[in-house]
Amino acid sequence: MPNPFTVQDFAARLARATEAAARAGLSGLLVTPGPDLVYLTGYQPVAITERLTALVLAPDRPPTMIVPKLERPDAEGAAGAGALTLTDWVDGEDPYAAAVPLLDPQGRYAVSDAAWAMHLLGLQEALPATAYVPVTRALPMLRAVKDADELERLAAAGAAADQAYHRILQVPFAGRRENEVAADLAALLTEFGHSQVDFTVVGSGPNGANPHHEADDRVIRAGDTVVLDFGGLKHGYGSDTTRTVHVGADVPEEVRTVHEVVRRAQQAAFEAVRPGVACQEIDRVARAVITEAGYGEYFIHRTGHGIGVTTHEPPYMVEGEEQPLVPGMCFSIEPGIYLPGRFGVRIEDIVTVTETGGWRFNSTPHDLAVVH
Amino acid sequence: MPNPFTVQDFAARLARATEAAARAGLSGLLVTPGPDLVYLTGYQPVAITERLTALVLAPDRPPTMIVPKLERPDAEGAAGAGALTLTDWVDGEDPYAAAVPLLDPQGRYAVSDAAWAMHLLGLQEALPATAYVPVTRALPMLRAVKDADELERLAAAGAAADQAYHRILQVPFAGRRENEVAADLAALLTEFGHSQVDFTVVGSGPNGANPHHEADDRVIRAGDTVVLDFGGLKHGYGSDTTRTVHVGADVPEEVRTVHEVVRRAQQAAFEAVRPGVACQEIDRVARAVITEAGYGEYFIHRTGHGIGVTTHEPPYMVEGEEQPLVPGMCFSIEPGIYLPGRFGVRIEDIVTVTETGGWRFNSTPHDLAVVH
Repeated sequence: MPNPFTVQDFAARLARATEAAARAGLSGLLVTPGPDLVYLTGYQPVAITERLTALVLAPDRPPTMIVPKLERPDAEGAAGAGALTLTDWVDGEDPYAAAVPLLDPQGRYAVSDAAWAMHLLGLQEALPATAYVPVTRALPMLRAVKDADELERLAAAGAAADQAYHRILQVPFAGRRENEVAADLAALLTEFGHSQVDFTVVGSGPNGANPHHEADDRVIRAGDTVVLDFGGLKHGYGSDTTRTVHVGADVPEEVRTVHEVVRRAQQAAFEAVRPGVACQEIDRVARAVITEAGYGEYFIHRTGHGIGVTTHEPPYMVEGEEQPLVPGMCFSIEPGIYLPGRFGVRIEDIVTVTETGGWRFNSTPHDLAVVH
Repeated sequence: MPNPFTVQDFAARLARATEAAARAGLSGLLVTPGPDLVYLTGYQPVAITERLTALVLAPDRPPTMIVPKLERPDAEGAAGAGALTLTDWVDGEDPYAAAVPLLDPQGRYAVSDAAWAMHLLGLQEALPATAYVPVTRALPMLRAVKDADELERLAAAGAAADQAYHRILQVPFAGRRENEVAADLAALLTEFGHSQVDFTVVGSGPNGANPHHEADDRVIRAGDTVVLDFGGLKHGYGSDTTRTVHVGADVPEEVRTVHEVVRRAQQAAFEAVRPGVACQEIDRVARAVITEAGYGEYFIHRTGHGIGVTTHEPPYMVEGEEQPLVPGMCFSIEPGIYLPGRFGVRIEDIVTVTETGGWRFNSTPHDLAVVH
């Protein structure tokens, strides 16, 4: 168990976020429940509801969080509560009017991407001269650079996912449904310390050609290629890894070929990781390998996404993302090839940027493993 | 297993929603993933992410849903997909530019309450003359009137919750923690066909006096009054019922008195249900019984809420809600009395409005059951 984050850790994150907003020319940040709030305060309401909860950060005032009165005891118990001023509103009151004193009426704020439209519209109506920009656009790198304590957690989550992968190779595949294997994966992630399982993709045969297929009642059979993509949270930080396996040792030539192209693409992208390289370059390197091999039109998603207190966040390894890599960033590298109606192949590791290059948090072999 | 909803069912819902928007003076609806989208299309993406998915309904064009290209196969597999025109956007493209052709540049749309602020801001920027209003404010009754197939599912969910209640009366209470009994309730809901458990309130002794208490590690003992409030989703529709029990047959006089007041309040409110009565009238009737008995200040919440594809939605049985009841509406009637530091009593049934009155989906006895 890693040491819990302290009030000082949260105070430092709050100060860094406030400074980053000021540097970006913003009046401040407006953070609603979700990963940014967890990161900045350790606070996660029991449920995200229509009742307004919002943290306001601005350089000229202390960090202040407005909460529904009946959730105030929960908020007071958050790990970072000691670094916050709390205020509340009562059922029946207008929560947007209650939030007005926290905001500059002419201010321009970064707002949580997933803040409810209902709340944004309420604030726009209460303070028509305020302006808002999604935090991922204004401050995309708010949570992107991880400190040593966070890297430790991400490494542990990756190691746990790797343990789950080693064990899943030993379960029977042929004759069982995808969702049975998916349940095994979920149980293994839990066994190795995950508190939350976010996805357990088991894409067998033609299902593997849909990169977002999860798992259904298709019965896996000998000769299937199977994409396994699984992850979740351990000690509050994410894992996410993909390997593609084959049921039975009799692997068709084209599966071998496609798998080798994806393996080379993943490796080339990994080797391109170093400080200063633009995120889009990681995508370009992977895509070039696949395109040169003649499969470009079958690589139908971006190459990767960041990971931290969520399993899916900036920075994105995608054409158009010019953000340079910085030591401490952590993200997936997951090229794939998807042949409609036939099969898919994807290989994914979580990688962090060091001073000299990339470092993988997943270390299971990239070979096309044979399962039974 | 009920018959699945058909494409015709979804087409009818889409048409009704579009008409309701036009009647409300709106250009149409903009629906993002969540309960409204499930209701209108049967579509629920594997995860709600930063990638824009949006259904646009407007009287002058066919219902159209824009999805990320890589999720298109999932969307095509949705039960209501045959009633929709699908369009997509590809990673790296601007999703808001891709959505522009679906919207009237001067239009005013009802937007899902929980649509991401990021998406709303993107659309506001792409089409600065459009306007938006939260769907719950613009069209609060969008999902309120249930058709026969929905009523069948709600009845089945209620019957399953009733089976769970009968069984929970047989488990030991005295000497066990609230959260152990709560775990029993969750297991029973699952055993009786729930795919999702939303809440399992076990409020024993003084904990019962907090209506928002869930269950904690308090050890239940003989002499405790215990509020049991539990529900979730079965076949996609909600259950939600509350009964109050007593540990041991030696029931104090005041507990009997308070329980009888709540029972009479619940019954009176139920008997007040008929088409044309305002929602607030149901609240007033329940409140009058409790107030006349001298406990008015201890009934500290509204009398009920709607239920459907969620366990908590409009219409609300609350002072100020003048919406008249319409046959097919389904909601809870759940008056309670909460004596701080001592105990609480609540009795809750799900009720639907018929042409002639109310009909209960819960039929377990309202008596104060004795548990051990």
